[in-house]
This record gives sequence, structure tokens and C-alpha cells, in this order.
Amino acid sequence: MVNRLISQLAHIEVITPKPEESLRFYRDVLGLEVSGQAGQSVYLRGWGEFFFHSLQITEGPAPAVAHSAWRTEGPDELTEAVARIERAGAGLGWRDADMGQGPAYRYRSPGGHVHEVFWEVERYRPSPELAPLYPNRPQRYVPRGAAVRRIDHVTFNTDDTLRDAHWYRDVLGYRFTELIRFDHAPNVVLGAFVSTTPMSHDLGLIRDAIDRSGKLSGVPGRTNHIAFWLDQREDVLRACEVYRENGVELEFGPGRHGVGENFFTYVREPGGMRVELFSSGYLQYAPDLFPFEWRVSKGALNFWSPSQLAPEPFLFDAFPPVEAEKHTRSAAQAVAH
Amino acid sequence: MVNRLISQLAHIEVITPKPEESLRFYRDVLGLEVSGQAGQSVYLRGWGEFFFHSLQITEGPAPAVAHSAWRTEGPDELTEAVARIERAGAGLGWRDADMGQGPAYRYRSPGGHVHEVFWEVERYRPSPELAPLYPNRPQRYVPRGAAVRRIDHVTFNTDDTLRDAHWYRDVLGYRFTELIRFDHAPNVVLGAFVSTTPMSHDLGLIRDAIDRSGKLSGVPGRTNHIAFWLDQREDVLRACEVYRENGVELEFGPGRHGVGENFFTYVREPGGMRVELFSSGYLQYAPDLFPFEWRVSKGALNFWSPSQLAPEPFLFDAFPPVEAEKHTRSAAQAVAH
Amino acid sequence: MVNRLISQLAHIEVITPKPEESLRFYRDVLGLEVSGQAGQSVYLRGWGEFFFHSLQITEGPAPAVAHSAWRTEGPDELTEAVARIERAGAGLGWRDADMGQGPAYRYRSPGGHVHEVFWEVERYRPSPELAPLYPNRPQRYVPRGAAVRRIDHVTFNTDDTLRDAHWYRDVLGYRFTELIRFDHAPNVVLGAFVSTTPMSHDLGLIRDAIDRSGKLSGVPGRTNHIAFWLDQREDVLRACEVYRENGVELEFGPGRHGVGENFFTYVREPGGMRVELFSSGYLQYAPDLFPFEWRVSKGALNFWSPSQLAPEPFLFDAFPPVEAEKHTRSAAQAVAH
Amino acid sequence: MVNRLISQLAHIEVITPKPEESLRFYRDVLGLEVSGQAGQSVYLRGWGEFFFHSLQITEGPAPAVAHSAWRTEGPDELTEAVARIERAGAGLGWRDADMGQGPAYRYRSPGGHVHEVFWEVERYRPSPELAPLYPNRPQRYVPRGAAVRRIDHVTFNTDDTLRDAHWYRDVLGYRFTELIRFDHAPNVVLGAFVSTTPMSHDLGLIRDAIDRSGKLSGVPGRTNHIAFWLDQREDVLRACEVYRENGVELEFGPGRHGVGENFFTYVREPGGMRVELFSSGYLQYAPDLFPFEWRVSKGALNFWSPSQLAPEPFLFDAFPPVEAEKHTRSAAQAVAH
Repeated sequence: MVNRLISQLAHIEVITPKPEESLRFYRDVLGLEVSGQAGQSVYLRGWGEFFFHSLQITEGPAPAVAHSAWRTEGPDELTEAVARIERAGAGLGWRDADMGQGPAYRYRSPGGHVHEVFWEVERYRPSPELAPLYPNRPQRYVPRGAAVRRIDHVTFNTDDTLRDAHWYRDVLGYRFTELIRFDHAPNVVLGAFVSTTPMSHDLGLIRDAIDRSGKLSGVPGRTNHIAFWLDQREDVLRACEVYRENGVELEFGPGRHGVGENFFTYVREPGGMRVELFSSGYLQYAPDLFPFEWRVSKGALNFWSPSQLAPEPFLFDAFPPVEAEKHTRSAAQAVAH
Repeated sequence: MVNRLISQLAHIEVITPKPEESLRFYRDVLGLEVSGQAGQSVYLRGWGEFFFHSLQITEGPAPAVAHSAWRTEGPDELTEAVARIERAGAGLGWRDADMGQGPAYRYRSPGGHVHEVFWEVERYRPSPELAPLYPNRPQRYVPRGAAVRRIDHVTFNTDDTLRDAHWYRDVLGYRFTELIRFDHAPNVVLGAFVSTTPMSHDLGLIRDAIDRSGKLSGVPGRTNHIAFWLDQREDVLRACEVYRENGVELEFGPGRHGVGENFFTYVREPGGMRVELFSSGYLQYAPDLFPFEWRVSKGALNFWSPSQLAPEPFLFDAFPPVEAEKHTRSAAQAVAH
Repeated sequence: MVNRLISQLAHIEVITPKPEESLRFYRDVLGLEVSGQAGQSVYLRGWGEFFFHSLQITEGPAPAVAHSAWRTEGPDELTEAVARIERAGAGLGWRDADMGQGPAYRYRSPGGHVHEVFWEVERYRPSPELAPLYPNRPQRYVPRGAAVRRIDHVTFNTDDTLRDAHWYRDVLGYRFTELIRFDHAPNVVLGAFVSTTPMSHDLGLIRDAIDRSGKLSGVPGRTNHIAFWLDQREDVLRACEVYRENGVELEFGPGRHGVGENFFTYVREPGGMRVELFSSGYLQYAPDLFPFEWRVSKGALNFWSPSQLAPEPFLFDAFPPVEAEKHTRSAAQAVAH
Repeated sequence: MVNRLISQLAHIEVITPKPEESLRFYRDVLGLEVSGQAGQSVYLRGWGEFFFHSLQITEGPAPAVAHSAWRTEGPDELTEAVARIERAGAGLGWRDADMGQGPAYRYRSPGGHVHEVFWEVERYRPSPELAPLYPNRPQRYVPRGAAVRRIDHVTFNTDDTLRDAHWYRDVLGYRFTELIRFDHAPNVVLGAFVSTTPMSHDLGLIRDAIDRSGKLSGVPGRTNHIAFWLDQREDVLRACEVYRENGVELEFGPGRHGVGENFFTYVREPGGMRVELFSSGYLQYAPDLFPFEWRVSKGALNFWSPSQLAPEPFLFDAFPPVEAEKHTRSAAQAVAH
């Protein structure tokens, strides 16, 4: 009768071939705070985040997500999660305590994405100048750049979105919340979304097609984007100005996803990774209403302009890019182990 | 290793001495949809709510909350919750399936408030004209009045906020999220907040003082307000206009509570009950960071004008009103059993 | 030493081949109020407009703007404006008092657009149910559809934007506020904007190209869009939802024009005409700072995604459509005289 | 047939007994840019302002507005304005060109407020780092503090609001837009508002009562507040957070004035002067609809809570404070001449 294993998405490690420019983007344009630095990595977090870090950026040959880290509901839930992952044959093994966190167990999902689960975490401690006025906040609000509050989700590319969503649901208890079927081929699921919270998703899954023919990349473990939260839709519009003032152009948006009701913008950070800033979205507390099923034509991706779907780069460019795959895989693996 | 028993606040029953005017307020000014009617009660819900109802308004001699209903995470969790309530000596007994829901078990909290827990619920089914464009919504958006999306929380008055918060936490697993201490008498807790979700509270507890001397009412089971959610702070400002156009004046707000970061307004509905409309608030997924502790002077209630605290009616008027207590108690009990 | 002749854009007459569907769009989706009906025309206005009407929709074979009407600063300014128009050889002659207004003098601009100038106007008188709570408003706020407040501007297509802008400035005292030059052909002016108010423009001028080669349509008097104002950017986002709920898809937006700083959306009404809803924009009171000069690449049209410019239909489809020109011209002329 | 003499409110000189703290407030909390410094004065402007400065802060013994400066529509209009002021017997004489502007003619209004009119102005020239991305802006947007865009209006206290409003209208052509009468003494006008733009007022006039009895201060030339503009209501809410993070508490608001529809907040800057930040408001282009007449009970000051009117300090504290009058008058005069 354990009803929840995973508590939340805790942090993501992003590979960038341009570490200095990427750092400037995440720190000065998004407004994240730097927590620490070690080896080839810098650790950052939003002003509203209580843990040591939510983003690790690591130098490497091509943009990619090296791993995603999920905190469990407690130590017993970590034990249970590891047991289930091992039973599913997906385990990669334990790692020692590292920057900002205790021991973590890594695994590879069916789509080839590297995750870890862990419980012990280092809590962020503000310097006196950053001590919050709100006792319920980890630090003072710092209005730098877009001033994103916290990391929200990661969306992966995969050759079988439905298989992956079922896996996360059945093995680790994620809620399977929404899916998008093609109108003329309903068996093909463009997107599937799972969640450990009442929001629509903290883990998205997009079909890894590389062109309009639907051809798959054949490369496991690719990523579509990482996403950060802002409190109000007006904050997202303000972020558009911050982007332009910093020479960053929107790739897609502003617009509303039908999925999750998210009011979104997408850009590419200097290292190449796609970054979403968004606000707004439903909270669904009931455990038994999911999943909700979309057809592409209903506006699942672009609710206000459903027949425009999305720009091609958003649909077909994922990370690592296909042509850079060989170098990137080894780099990501070097980081992951 | 059950880590969650209660899933969400499902509905609230409000007593009103002016049922027709109250219905007009909830339906036409707040914009709730009428689900059904039975006996002295009308059942309503917001456009974003998936269950049959979230508000039951019932004719009675004085404004009050007759009961609050909480849905569990599943049938086993209902069994477990009832067992715990009975062990705590708070049980009032089972009630048969009723409008929109299956069997429910009622209990009385230490502060004298009547609650029920249940699992089986009737899902709202829209008429064809109200069929939603979003598959993840229960119905089409209806822009009537303030168009509140869903019920969010109820805040009760009690003679011992800390005792009650501990009870909800220890017996039913609510997270105890925030508390407000008086600056010059830190042992006295003005407010305590518990939650079954990642938001700061779906159940608030305010000290039941009736004047600045701190004198308690001596009447158990009183209520400060019920609260509804809007998606954006701009929606709250728009609601202020809708209120004025309908002859409803703000009692308090707009403003920001430090607690929960809620951007609030308060009015009195025609039957007398205080109603909050709000938006904005943090999502806190970590299970082990609570509670956060405020001093009154930090702006827990009125963050942008901390030295103004709140208008006296907000602080000292609760429902049923003290002078009407005798009639109301019997009425509320008549409804509750 | 007359420094202002024209006070404001007062109303626009739009031709529609689908008058019933267009009426439903303007009344129920945009939320305009119907003021009256006569012949083949219906007259409407926004809840924030003090005159009898700001939009006249008239049945005809193809979408077009039949005329635009400008109120002068007073009766003497009307006399002066007419004298100047006649000196410029653009006059078409006087028309008798008509629905909602006194006598008007019509003229044709160099780009072939029919305008009128007038002074006497009928003030809107609300029915008792619509009497405003704000004495500074003409009526109560009616939250129907997008609830646009008022008409704001009209943007015409023309073979020579600069010639037209100079004409409006020199003959009638419009301020010439902004212009957009092509980066690689700076002598070609994609857009020019003139204004009778402190906002960037109430009359826009777009080069009448019909494809990427820059080929001109050869048809005078075409229109790109008409535009209505909402008070907040959040109101524009809310309008996007209202559109979708009514089966209307965005053609372009939401986004920000560099010109005027307008936060825009564009759709096509059922009769075919392009309609902009927008909010936000600068107020520039100084008479001597204009014009401001853009290059296309700077984001004059699409500030947040400057390299995407705009969707082709927005750039190349104007009204009346080229193929329907013959019928439409005669229809527009029939209406205009 | 000159229909406009005055173009806009160009700048205000504020006296502060705490020049360093006031500078920090205007620069770091409001986000104004420093243009220059001379003698006891610092000159500032908002990121959206094209002239050298819009605010001059000058050291002195008590908070006050030393003078307000109005730019004319042109050099001829300056000549005409001076002639009219002299005919009205209000002239104080010419001053030489000064920081950021050409020669100015000073006068004293019937309520005792010192103004100047001028035409020649120094245009702000950004440094290369502040060069704007928008050609229609004077500089790059700088997101410091509340990042106010521009000065908007000044509101004075006076013993006869109606006399003053008529004077500004009749002598200098201000539009007389709105007035507020007391319900039970309609001959007493609590507030009167005049404007040189389509917004409701750039000059407000409030009855100079010092307590609820209506007793007048007897001191001419006092000021209620100065006001700055933000583009969106959400920007005003964001400013509330910026204030709190900087230790500044709201004296009044957020709320909506019925007059002008302004969404407001009021604070006191360190030198004592009351400062309004606001957004939203109507644009009224018609020259012949004014004035609109309020009763206090209609919510002219506090539209959403009309029976609460306003906090007493807002109603009865003006600058210079009555008790400090003697010192302040001489200081203001020293500055003014």
C-alpha cells in the first residue's frame, strides 16, 4: 500500500560544448544562482528552490541531458524504488554521495535515458544578504534576467512513447497523465506525459522522428527540452523581452500547449539545448482520472493555432543531434559513469 | 509505508440564511455551475472540477460550514483513515451514499469541525454543449462572472490552532506547512496551516479570538472563510470588477498573504460567509521541509503592508457569528446528521 | 497655429460576404454591442466607446474596408481639414448626416482608400440596465466574449507607403511616427505608420506586395487589418481562449510588434477580413521626435522572433483579395457613394 | 484656433531632507536612471523617457514639490502660454536655460503651486551599452527595481480644487476631465483632475483638508503625491514585491481608483514624499465629453472598496507637512528662485 515512491524531479545534468556561454545564459539570462563548481561542472538553482542545485551544466562535445535525478518520498521509498528498478532489469548501480546529495542509484529507462533516484539531499543555505523575507522561501527573490523560480520538467525523445510511459507508471508509480495520438494513425503516439506531482508532467516523452516522414533517429536517450517555471504568464512575456535584450530569439511561442495547459516559450541556449520557460497549468489531485487522450489536430501542442502544429525544428531537432551522436554518446556516458 | 491517505478537499457544505441570494452569488458572480438540487440544498462546481460537486449550499439560520469532505487516495486508504479516526476517538459514524458520492465516514476534529472522508465519487459528465475542447478538462470554459476554476481550501477558527494542526498531521497524514506566532507572545499561534497537496494549505486554522484582547469565542466549529482558485493574478483583478458590477464590495484586499504567497481578495456572500478568491502560490514537493514559521510582524497575513495586519472584521468575525450561535449549532447539527 | 485637426479614428465600415456570421463574430466573440441597423448595415461599438458606433458591417461580395471615418477636433478644424483636402485634389464631396453622425466629407487618399472627416456625432446613451458604475465610462462593462474595449486602428495596403504617410502628415497633420525599411533595399519602405494620438499609430500602411518577389497587386485601396484594443496583455491571452472556444484559430501571434510595442494576435473573421486584438503600446507626447526608423531584421513586425518575420498570409493577403477585386471594387464604391 | 498649448508634464522637482536615501529609492527601488548632478540636485529619468530628466531631487528641509515643468507644443505655443499666464497675473518670470532644458517661464497657480513652461529640451543620448534594440525607445530596458517607465502625473493639495481646475483649463487649455463631489455636500469638491493628454490627468487636485472635520491647512502649494507609470498591472504587483524586498511598505493599495481607472499603490519615499506607482487607465480622445462627475461613495478613490474610502494618511498628510511648513516654504522658495 505504498502509494508514492518518487517525490519530485530534483535536478538535471546538461552537457554543453560552450560551458562559459551556457553558464552566462543560465545565470544571467534565466537568472539561476550558482551553488558550486567541481570538475567540468557548474551547479545552479532557481531562487525558489530549497535544494543545493537543480541544474548541473557539464562541458562536453554536444548538447544532451547526461542524467535526470529524482528524489524519493523517503529512505524506505528509495529502497523500494531500487528493488523495482532491479527487478525490471534497468539498473546501472549505486553512486557515492556527490555534490549536494547523498548516494544515488542510476538506471537506464527503456528509451535509453539515464536517471538516478536518491533520498539524502543537501539543503540550500543562503548567505545573510540573501536571507529570505518569506520564511517559506529558501532565499530572497533576485530579479536577475527572467528570474525563473524552479526547474519543472524534462522532455525526452524516444522511439516508443507509450512503452516508456507504461514503464515509468508500472515500475516507479508515475501517473500517466496525457497522450497525443496522430489523427490518421491513432496507434502512433506522438507524445506521452507522466508525472510525480499534481501537475500534468515532470517527464515528457516525444516520438523521436527526424522528419515529416516519421523516420526515427535510431539513437536512444535523446532530449527535446528542459523546462523552468515562472509564476505568472506575464512573467513569461517579460522573459521574452529579457531574451531579446540578451540576443536570444524565440524558436517557438509564446503559445499554449493543450497538454498541461502550459503557456510556453522555447529558445536554444548557447550550447544548443532547447529550453522552455512557461507558466500556468492545471493541478489534478485525483489519482484515478488519467490518462487524457488528445489527437494532434485538437491543439495538443499549439492550442491556439492547432493547424500550425509547431515549427519543424521543435518537432525534429533533439539532443544530441543525430550527426553528432557518436561523439556525444561517449561523452554522455563518460559523464554518467 | 502508506505515505498518503487523503487525496484532496472534495467539497464543502455551506449554510446560508438567504439561499436564493447565495445561489445567485455562487452561480452568477463566482460563476459556478449548478450540478443538482435536493431537499434544502443546491450542489455546484467550478468549470475545472471533475467531480459532481465541490460546494453544497444549504438553507439554515446562520452562515456556517456544515461539513467538509475529503477524498482519500483509494479504498484502502479510506479504511485506514477511518481506523485512525476511530482510534483517535473522533468518529461520528458512516453515512450512506449521497448526492454525487459513495459512503462517507464523518468525524469531528478537536476544534469542533465536522468532516467526512470518502472514496467513491460521481464524475461530472458534461452535456454536449459543454463538452470540452481540452480532453484534460471536464467541460468547456464558461466565462460567467469571475469564472472561478475550483474550490481550494477552507479556513476554520479554533481555540487551539497548534493542537488541531498536530491532530490532522498525526492522525490523517496532512503536512503541517506553516504557522504564525505572535511577536510578543510566541507561544500563541495565530494561524496554522495543513495540506494534503503541494500547495501551502487546503485547511487553514485561525485562532478564534473575537476582539483585540484575544478573548476566545468559546464556540467550537467556527469558520473564517472558504476559498476558490483562479489561474492568474490578473483573473483576481478582473474578479474585483465583476464584484463591483454585482454590488459586492471587498472586505480585504487585493493583497498578498505571506503564508502560501496567495494573492487574495475577501468578500462576504449574501448569506454572510466570507469568500476568498485568490491566485498564485508555491508548490512544495519535498516532504521534509515543513513547517515554516512566521511572526505576525513579518507580513504573514498582509505581506505588502505588514504593519496594517488585516481589517478587524477579517480577524474577529467568524461563522456562525457568536450571537447567532445557539440557533446555528442546532441547524448545523441537523444538517450534519 | 492650429496644431491638431483630427481628433481620432471614429469608425470603420467593413464589407462582408457573410453578414450573419460576421455579426456573430463581432458581437459574440469580440463582444461588441449592437447600436443599430439600417439597410445592409449593422452598427456596433465596444463597451468603452462613447459614440454611437465604431464599426459598421455591410453586406457585400468580398471583404474590404469601405471607408474610415475621422472625427475632427471641432467644427473649425473640420472646415480647415476639408479646405486642405480640396487643395490636395483628393475630395469626393459631402454626405448628409447619417446613422450616428452629422455631415461628413469624403476623400480618397493617394493609396486609394476612402476616408471621411466629420465633427457632429451622436453620443451613445445606455439603457438603464447598462448604466455605468464609473461615471467616466459610457456603459457598464459587459463580459461577453473577448470584451474588446474600443476600436484602435486600421492598417491599409498601398503601393507607396512613404508617399501616403507624407500625405497624411502634410495635408491633415497626422504625426508620422515609425517606418520599416528593408535591410537590403533601404529605399523600399515595408511599413509606415501615422497617428492622430500619442499612440504609435491609428493608421498603418503596408506595402501591397502579393508574394516574396515583391510584386505589387496593382489594386488600390486594399486593407491588411482592423484592430481593437484590450486593456491588459492578459486580456489578449484570455481572448485566445475565447477564440478557440468559438472555433477561431490564430493566424499570427501572440507576439510583439516592435512598431508601437503592441502585443498582438491576428485572426480572420468569417467574412474574410483580418482582425487584430492587442494591448500594450507606448504613449509618446512629444511632437518633435518622430519618425523612428526600423529595419525589418530588427523585429519591427515580430520582435521576439525577428528572423521569422511573419506568416506569409499576413504579409501577402489583403482585402479585397486580388482575384475578387472586380466585384469588390464596385461593391465598395456602391457603398461609398 | 490653437487647440493645444501644453504638450506634456516634463519633469518635477522634489525636495528631500534625506537626499542620499531618496536617491537610492528613486534609482535602485523605482529603477530610474541618473542623468546628471548639479549643486544640491540629482537629475533622473525612466528608461522610457526621451528627455534629459523627468525628476530632479534637491536637498531641503522638508518634503515638497519645488516646481513642475510643462513642455509646450512648440515655440509659438510657449509665447502664447506666457502671454496668457501674464494676463492672468500669475507670472513669476523667465529663468535661463538650465540642466537639460532651455529657457523657462515660471508662474504660481491659484493654489500656490510653482510651475514652469518651456519648449527647448535636451534629448537623452544613451551610452553605447544602453543603446536601445527598439528604435522607438530612448534606451535599452534596464530591469532594476520596479523599472518604472516614465513619470505620469503630480497631484497637489489646494484650498479650492474647482477654482484651480477652471484656471488650468481657461488659462492654459488643460482638459478638465473628472471631479469628485462629497455626497452630502455636493458643492464641496474633494478632487478635480486636469490633463494635457488623452489620459485622465497629469495634474490632480485634492482638497487640502487636514482632518475628518474638513479643516483646511491654510498653507498654499502643498502636494499629495507624484506618480510613475508601469506598462501592466502585473508590473505593479511585481513592484509590491520589490518594495517589500527593499523595506518599503504600502501605505495604500493595491487598488483601483475610479478616477482614471488607475490600478495604484502608494508608498512614502525616505524623504517623506508620497509616491504612486500605477498602471492601466483610459484614453479619451474626444475633446467635448468632459468633465465626468463622481460622488465619493461611488468609489472615485477606492473603486473596489468604496465604503473604505482611503487610509487617513493618504487623505490628510500632504507635503510639506503642516508643522514643518515654515522651514519648508523658505526652502522651496530658495529653490524656486
